[in-house]
Amino acid sequence: MRKKRKGKLTQKIGTPPGTLIYTGDNKDVKPRIRVFEFDEESYKEKELSSLDDWDFSPDSGTVYWVDVVGLSDSEELFRKLRDLCGIHLLVLEDVLNVNHRPKAEYFDDYIFVILKMLTYADDNGVGVESEQVSLIWGSNYVVTFQEREGDVFEGIRDRIRNNKGIVRKEKACYLAYLLIDSVVDNYFAVLEKLGERVEEFEELVITDPSYEIVGNIHNLKRELIELRKSIWPLREVLGVLYKGDSDMIKPCAVYFRDVYDHTVEIIDIVETYREMASGLLDVFLSSLSNKMNEVMKVLTMIATIFIPLTFIAGIYGMNFKYMPELDWKWGYPLVLIVMVFISICMVLYFKRKRWF
Amino acid sequence: MRKKRKGKLTQKIGTPPGTLIYTGDNKDVKPRIRVFEFDEESYKEKELSSLDDWDFSPDSGTVYWVDVVGLSDSEELFRKLRDLCGIHLLVLEDVLNVNHRPKAEYFDDYIFVILKMLTYADDNGVGVESEQVSLIWGSNYVVTFQEREGDVFEGIRDRIRNNKGIVRKEKACYLAYLLIDSVVDNYFAVLEKLGERVEEFEELVITDPSYEIVGNIHNLKRELIELRKSIWPLREVLGVLYKGDSDMIKPCAVYFRDVYDHTVEIIDIVETYREMASGLLDVFLSSLSNKMNEVMKVLTMIATIFIPLTFIAGIYGMNFKYMPELDWKWGYPLVLIVMVFISICMVLYFKRKRWF
Amino acid sequence: MRKKRKGKLTQKIGTPPGTLIYTGDNKDVKPRIRVFEFDEESYKEKELSSLDDWDFSPDSGTVYWVDVVGLSDSEELFRKLRDLCGIHLLVLEDVLNVNHRPKAEYFDDYIFVILKMLTYADDNGVGVESEQVSLIWGSNYVVTFQEREGDVFEGIRDRIRNNKGIVRKEKACYLAYLLIDSVVDNYFAVLEKLGERVEEFEELVITDPSYEIVGNIHNLKRELIELRKSIWPLREVLGVLYKGDSDMIKPCAVYFRDVYDHTVEIIDIVETYREMASGLLDVFLSSLSNKMNEVMKVLTMIATIFIPLTFIAGIYGMNFKYMPELDWKWGYPLVLIVMVFISICMVLYFKRKRWF
Amino acid sequence: MRKKRKGKLTQKIGTPPGTLIYTGDNKDVKPRIRVFEFDEESYKEKELSSLDDWDFSPDSGTVYWVDVVGLSDSEELFRKLRDLCGIHLLVLEDVLNVNHRPKAEYFDDYIFVILKMLTYADDNGVGVESEQVSLIWGSNYVVTFQEREGDVFEGIRDRIRNNKGIVRKEKACYLAYLLIDSVVDNYFAVLEKLGERVEEFEELVITDPSYEIVGNIHNLKRELIELRKSIWPLREVLGVLYKGDSDMIKPCAVYFRDVYDHTVEIIDIVETYREMASGLLDVFLSSLSNKMNEVMKVLTMIATIFIPLTFIAGIYGMNFKYMPELDWKWGYPLVLIVMVFISICMVLYFKRKRWF
Amino acid sequence: MRKKRKGKLTQKIGTPPGTLIYTGDNKDVKPRIRVFEFDEESYKEKELSSLDDWDFSPDSGTVYWVDVVGLSDSEELFRKLRDLCGIHLLVLEDVLNVNHRPKAEYFDDYIFVILKMLTYADDNGVGVESEQVSLIWGSNYVVTFQEREGDVFEGIRDRIRNNKGIVRKEKACYLAYLLIDSVVDNYFAVLEKLGERVEEFEELVITDPSYEIVGNIHNLKRELIELRKSIWPLREVLGVLYKGDSDMIKPCAVYFRDVYDHTVEIIDIVETYREMASGLLDVFLSSLSNKMNEVMKVLTMIATIFIPLTFIAGIYGMNFKYMPELDWKWGYPLVLIVMVFISICMVLYFKRKRWF
Repeated sequence: MRKKRKGKLTQKIGTPPGTLIYTGDNKDVKPRIRVFEFDEESYKEKELSSLDDWDFSPDSGTVYWVDVVGLSDSEELFRKLRDLCGIHLLVLEDVLNVNHRPKAEYFDDYIFVILKMLTYADDNGVGVESEQVSLIWGSNYVVTFQEREGDVFEGIRDRIRNNKGIVRKEKACYLAYLLIDSVVDNYFAVLEKLGERVEEFEELVITDPSYEIVGNIHNLKRELIELRKSIWPLREVLGVLYKGDSDMIKPCAVYFRDVYDHTVEIIDIVETYREMASGLLDVFLSSLSNKMNEVMKVLTMIATIFIPLTFIAGIYGMNFKYMPELDWKWGYPLVLIVMVFISICMVLYFKRKRWF
Repeated sequence: MRKKRKGKLTQKIGTPPGTLIYTGDNKDVKPRIRVFEFDEESYKEKELSSLDDWDFSPDSGTVYWVDVVGLSDSEELFRKLRDLCGIHLLVLEDVLNVNHRPKAEYFDDYIFVILKMLTYADDNGVGVESEQVSLIWGSNYVVTFQEREGDVFEGIRDRIRNNKGIVRKEKACYLAYLLIDSVVDNYFAVLEKLGERVEEFEELVITDPSYEIVGNIHNLKRELIELRKSIWPLREVLGVLYKGDSDMIKPCAVYFRDVYDHTVEIIDIVETYREMASGLLDVFLSSLSNKMNEVMKVLTMIATIFIPLTFIAGIYGMNFKYMPELDWKWGYPLVLIVMVFISICMVLYFKRKRWF
Repeated sequence: MRKKRKGKLTQKIGTPPGTLIYTGDNKDVKPRIRVFEFDEESYKEKELSSLDDWDFSPDSGTVYWVDVVGLSDSEELFRKLRDLCGIHLLVLEDVLNVNHRPKAEYFDDYIFVILKMLTYADDNGVGVESEQVSLIWGSNYVVTFQEREGDVFEGIRDRIRNNKGIVRKEKACYLAYLLIDSVVDNYFAVLEKLGERVEEFEELVITDPSYEIVGNIHNLKRELIELRKSIWPLREVLGVLYKGDSDMIKPCAVYFRDVYDHTVEIIDIVETYREMASGLLDVFLSSLSNKMNEVMKVLTMIATIFIPLTFIAGIYGMNFKYMPELDWKWGYPLVLIVMVFISICMVLYFKRKRWF
Repeated sequence: MRKKRKGKLTQKIGTPPGTLIYTGDNKDVKPRIRVFEFDEESYKEKELSSLDDWDFSPDSGTVYWVDVVGLSDSEELFRKLRDLCGIHLLVLEDVLNVNHRPKAEYFDDYIFVILKMLTYADDNGVGVESEQVSLIWGSNYVVTFQEREGDVFEGIRDRIRNNKGIVRKEKACYLAYLLIDSVVDNYFAVLEKLGERVEEFEELVITDPSYEIVGNIHNLKRELIELRKSIWPLREVLGVLYKGDSDMIKPCAVYFRDVYDHTVEIIDIVETYREMASGLLDVFLSSLSNKMNEVMKVLTMIATIFIPLTFIAGIYGMNFKYMPELDWKWGYPLVLIVMVFISICMVLYFKRKRWF
Repeated sequence: MRKKRKGKLTQKIGTPPGTLIYTGDNKDVKPRIRVFEFDEESYKEKELSSLDDWDFSPDSGTVYWVDVVGLSDSEELFRKLRDLCGIHLLVLEDVLNVNHRPKAEYFDDYIFVILKMLTYADDNGVGVESEQVSLIWGSNYVVTFQEREGDVFEGIRDRIRNNKGIVRKEKACYLAYLLIDSVVDNYFAVLEKLGERVEEFEELVITDPSYEIVGNIHNLKRELIELRKSIWPLREVLGVLYKGDSDMIKPCAVYFRDVYDHTVEIIDIVETYREMASGLLDVFLSSLSNKMNEVMKVLTMIATIFIPLTFIAGIYGMNFKYMPELDWKWGYPLVLIVMVFISICMVLYFKRKRWF
């Protein structure tokens, strides 16, 4: 989640509406198009070099899933899509603007949804990574757009290929649901990782608080803020979807409601983590104050015991000619006894004050 | 409430919707089925080895309570339940997914409610423990699912057996109300324990603040956060229920409203405790700062009084040949008098500054 | 407001709904029943030993006020009330459960309201005390229940006895209004006391902050939290009442609206006090930090001035055979001059740093 | 805004509704009544000793402004007002209760509005002062009540006298608007003063933080809290007014909407100031901590450099008979060199740690 | 954003409604009027010395953009505008009052919108600068008002001149949309700058926290507060616009919805930054506390090791006649060994306490 934000927000400023520019980081990933055609009986999977090769029959019982990976140099592709499925250019502009907030838009013939696919990259220390996934579905097709290879849809492809579950019996909206559901489900995996970190920090901050944890907690909080930023609108999106009465939603409303429930749960968990993470800094500060207290007590005790004694020693180190005590036979032991007595008094005083 | 969360959120990712997998910790508890059949006159209680033995007559005046404890290896059981009462598989999947948020769902023939049964385990130091309880009720049956033995329903079983109260005169929804009510009532017991801890910490933090309390307060806050997480949706659930106009609710609406009132009260109390617990950390920090202040004052007073005196002693400890004072007859007592005078000045100064 | 909460929340768990158990602390106060009968012309006041002696005519123009004080052993009384006025047992159960949240409930023939009567007990240091007052009123009667003697209704009794104001010209709902109004009005008295404490603490925390104030502020905050907990639902209650279109409300709607306005004002004041009290702890912490700063400065100045000087004295206290300075005639005064010079430098340095 | 609140909230407790008691501080200001009569052509201004002298014709085209200043001993006046314009006694009671929350009330023939007129008293250090202004207007009259002389209406009186603007062409509601508008406009003047103080404190807290600022910030925060308390209901009041469809509002709705916009802006500004003021205390605490850090560093550096040196000097100040170093020729210079070396090391160490 | 606010809020107090006074800082910028006339085929651009020269035909297919820069001495101009397009004087007053909150107002023939155009002035260190832009558009004209030269509209002028995009094919509302959109788009540029500062401070506060950062964070927070203050109402404005069913909105509703989405995104980002900035101060305080801890540990270690040693040296520096140790042959080395032993103990103690 921590990448150079430079220019991200601003690179489209000044261009007229409807300009098709990809605004993401994966500018070298050329689009790769795969089409899955299936109905209950048959199944076909093709990799197309251009959408011209897609034989799309709008009103047939077949369901088409056009799976596009890579968004640079895709203008050609998009214009064909517009011609084939009647999708508005403004929508396709939103697909390319990968800094978009999750949203859902209704049209007469299709529904357009933007999601954020999150993955947790443990190995390279980046933390949460976000990739924009756009879905457009009509009565018998689903088009998905991703920025780069690697996604959470492999299980769904398997189910189509091997006719597992009911995906090949249902309409396009069920496929759309499956895709959205698998994106949302993956949030739990991300949350689990974050939850482990929260618990780890909780452990650390109490047992062995060191300053590095402050930076870590701050980073964790930032990741949770970012996470929340992409989940709140997602919830709105799904709340709108499952209540929708469009023909592209109705048959699958009960499923969309299920995903909606998941987003509500995710928000609950994120908010809980956020509160815990906030509390952690307070605990750390308390522990720091407490440690300082301990340090100060040690200093004060040592200083309070030895400074007066040193003073007494200093007195009998003076070189006055007439200091009667110096000539006493028992002067030296007497002074030592007085010193021991004073230090015992001090120790008792600190004991009573419960300093140790 | 503090258990390994590992894998909890993620173990269902990738499975197709409708898969019946139990996601809880009590994987070795095989389902144990008890059926209570009763009407105003008669009462029967059976322990079934399989639901095949349940002679269920849907439209009779008898009320059936199917009390299932243990959820692993229950696929068989669930499929029969679907056949007998027409319950959707997605619902049964939710029953098995014990990490669910409390929720209520309406269907034509039955109502489905998920609750969290809380218990406070004092003895083993775990604190609040949570177990998922699911209820499904139709016009003349109630099915309850728990993860393990031990619940808050024993009083209700007694009332059925001994025909106490009006439970045997009323319909299934009254039994459902009783079950939900006893779950919610038990929240008060948990809250009372937490309230005692809040008061205990309040006492401690003012009279005898030690660092251990920070961890304890943090844990308390976390438990309250978790508690709130399971109570807020519960309130929604009951708010929806008592306003419902389904036939499975209407006759008992007044009772459900009563439980709803209780959840509102519970939320009030939880929020109050949360505010108090938050305040405690501030009080602790104040007390820590105050203690540090005391420590510093002691150090400063001792140092400020004795450092100048030691310096004076140091001067007359120098070995210069020509130091006239050293030869004075009254040099030594004079220096002592000067020292006493200086320390009296210092003490007066601190007195005026009100440092002790 | 600080009493043993032990068992309060839990003592009713497990009892079947409709059980008449008094849950308060005044278990030895037997009910004392007074009835005021009045219309514009006449007025009667009786103390009854049992409700059997109450000659109640439901549809007459007379207004009855049944004033019950003391709730233990009241089952008999309540059953008669149910027979006479047709009040539901669940309502009477709520009357006895004195840990209830303020609420209002509509029935066909009567309205049921639960309030908290607050009093501020200055003398014994308890602070705010709360007593539950319940009102039930129908078309021509009002029944009030209190836990113990002593209330804020004496003025109203006087007005009835002496025909002051319009109370004897109006219907029962006006009497109900008067009773609720005098309960709510008394909140201002409590708020005034709390406001004085807030101002007193504000004064103290700036002019003479001592650690005791932390506990006091914390207690004050807790009392305000508790106060808010009983006022917010009160506002809801009255908001519902004044908009009501029941026959028991309509004629007095304008009056209820007035009380509602008062509760809004009370909430405003409570929230203001809460914000101020929260700010106080921050001010106290600032003042503590500031004091610590002062203490540290004194220590640092003394130490920084005298430690180097003592070191110089230490050097010339060494017993080396060959230390040429010791034999100089002006060695001693020279060293003294150097010391004075160093300390002047230090003082100037601290002056420039504005440490005093 | 900081006056004795003693008895303010409670002095009306116990009085029956409809009692006309003035609850403010200006009990010695007898009412002074001025009447402005005007239409487009003519204009008259009279000072009345009693309302008996007011020749009021309800349905004429003339607009009357009755300007009452001073509220004590006004019962007589109010009863006449009730007779002349038909104003309810409860309304007049609210006029006299000057601790009221701003509010608006609709009646068939007139509208009743309570406002708070704020003034910022720079010279005497009191800060924001508040005075209650009440307005009642019907189809052709406006009655205003103030507690004492001195108001923000002088400009309006001028416009009436000199027929400036459109006030003499419009109806009574336009005059009411003008009066409310000039009260609200004056809030900006108060806000400007507070804004200057916020900026001044911002400047101070960064450049030259001293402890006095804590009390000042706290006072500022309290004034902002109080301000907000009187502005939020004002906004509600005007929100209700401009949407109203009464005949006393409709012709001037566009104007009232304008005032409403102003109150929204005022709330924006108040909230902004509040956030800034809250931030200031944090900044102050940071600056205090930072200063303490500086002080501690000075102390630590001095102590760390000189304490070991003093120790070394102490060693060679011991009086053992057999200390070979004491007899060395170069013993003394050697020790001095060692000391210089040690202190250089220390200084380098602190340099590397970037302590100065 | 930090300019003298003096007199800004108050300079219009006391003037009658409808007075045309410019309240901004650019009082020397005389209005400069440019008119763009265009339809799909033709395009004309004129600079007018007075609106008299504008040949405006209200119902033609031509779209007019009147681009006014500079608002002082514009009364003449405004009166002509009122005569030509029928715009209300109150609207024109709002145009001149440049301290207005963003707002939108509907009229029968035109729509009036106030926006804030933000620019980020890097070079002179001022930070965010704000300029009020007002738009009025009817069926075939758009009038824009700015305070001074320099805006974000140059791209739009280009598109009109060179017939780029669809602006010359569409109606006036599309031009209005383009203008609003380019103002809103520029917010992203400002946000990007602020985001960079947030990240820079995050970096600094962890790696190299110095006190200057507190002031910087405080300023950043203030700018974000101000930013939010101008964006929240903007969102309301656009929310109202895109749902509007006026003829001046309908044809462009889909575009306005797009801008609305942008404002929602902007608010998301601002709130995220605000949360991060708030967290930064806590991190800074932690780091300060941590540093203080380090300093104190150094001091305590040095003092704790050397003070007892110095005391021992002090003892054998006393001049008592009878101190047997002084005469021992191995007294001196023995004492040295004892000292080394004590210091090793101390170091081990600190090691075990993990102080370094």
